Amino acid sequence: MAAKHHHTEKHFTASDVVRDLVIGMADGLTVPFALAAGLSGAVVASRVVVVAGVAEIAAGAIAMGLGGYLAARGDADHYAAERRRELREVRELAREEEREIVQIFAQYGLDHEACKPVLAHFHQDHEAWVDFMMRFELGLEKPEPGRALRSALTIGGAYIVGGLVPLAPYMLIEGLQPALRVSVICTLIALGLFGAAKSRFTGIGMLRGAMQTMFVGGLASAAAFLLARWIGG
Amino acid sequence: MAAKHHHTEKHFTASDVVRDLVIGMADGLTVPFALAAGLSGAVVASRVVVVAGVAEIAAGAIAMGLGGYLAARGDADHYAAERRRELREVRELAREEEREIVQIFAQYGLDHEACKPVLAHFHQDHEAWVDFMMRFELGLEKPEPGRALRSALTIGGAYIVGGLVPLAPYMLIEGLQPALRVSVICTLIALGLFGAAKSRFTGIGMLRGAMQTMFVGGLASAAAFLLARWIGG
Repeated sequence: MAAKHHHTEKHFTASDVVRDLVIGMADGLTVPFALAAGLSGAVVASRVVVVAGVAEIAAGAIAMGLGGYLAARGDADHYAAERRRELREVRELAREEEREIVQIFAQYGLDHEACKPVLAHFHQDHEAWVDFMMRFELGLEKPEPGRALRSALTIGGAYIVGGLVPLAPYMLIEGLQPALRVSVICTLIALGLFGAAKSRFTGIGMLRGAMQTMFVGGLASAAAFLLARWIGG
Repeated sequence: MAAKHHHTEKHFTASDVVRDLVIGMADGLTVPFALAAGLSGAVVASRVVVVAGVAEIAAGAIAMGLGGYLAARGDADHYAAERRRELREVRELAREEEREIVQIFAQYGLDHEACKPVLAHFHQDHEAWVDFMMRFELGLEKPEPGRALRSALTIGGAYIVGGLVPLAPYMLIEGLQPALRVSVICTLIALGLFGAAKSRFTGIGMLRGAMQTMFVGGLASAAAFLLARWIGG
């Protein structure tokens, strides 16, 4: 089973980075795409679409990246604070903590007798007891050191890369309507490829994954296009 | 300990909705604010700011809400698939699964002797065994039914409410510069209140929470403003 366990751990480590990439890329491909399409619906100049798109990409990358950084830092602080509390409780309220272990085991139909060797060991090893409570009572995972910064850069970078796909045509192609057409085609292809790649990690079928991300991007763009045309057209 | 356990469960249920509200509101207050400020930096007409802002809010709410819906649905599918796999493994590869339990316990310094009553019970109750493996081997929480839709509406709704705060001044006030000033003041106040309220759930100090969200919003807006002025000014 060592091989499988190794595999499981690899899976979890990869999925943190993958989740961050997915978070950043999904919104980066979708929101600037929809914004640019929406502004095209209001028939503004190409220059305005580019300015708004660049402003949106900068704002989105900073908001999501810095937001991710602060969230990860907050999680790490929360874990440390809960761990200190749990360590104090194990020392000062050992009887209550014992009862909590019995309750956790009881959820799986395990009786008091089954807990006894576990409790006996934990009285010898408070650190192990606390680690056990953190995971099995509170459901908290030990945060990886350095995760916050890596997470921020991954999310923000993915947002910028994703956002440049729909925006590049407006920068490179003369005329609003031709740029819109190329942007829609390029971005739908990118959304489909991204959704198919993402499906490898979420375990749904590749085609379904591709359809889902294209649907989200398409719906967001259509809504933005229609609203913008209605207000500003 | 019943009271504390009850409290813990309440805490977890609340935090799902709170987390969704925070996700939607944080980006809703920040990105449309920064976009509007950025476009003001490029000195476009107020009408363009409103059109771009409304398009962004629609796109962001759909992308984040629908994205949240699909993510929650994906989690539920993933849980169901992994549970089927574990059930099969418990039936067909009982010895391997036994070894996995021994490994899980070994992480906390518990020896084989301590596992024996647990293993004996699980051989009588495969469902409990699988539930135990889902939580303690794979670290997966049972998904709440109906969570996906509730999550989507909460995130999307919070994004719209948050996004209307910075945009309303451009709709109501004549002239780009006065509207920008009112938008900046209103949104910084809203970001501060939101950050302070959020800090109650993340366990950091209220002042620090307020400063953090104002900092993210301010930085995103400043970057968008300067970039937009540089490109389009």
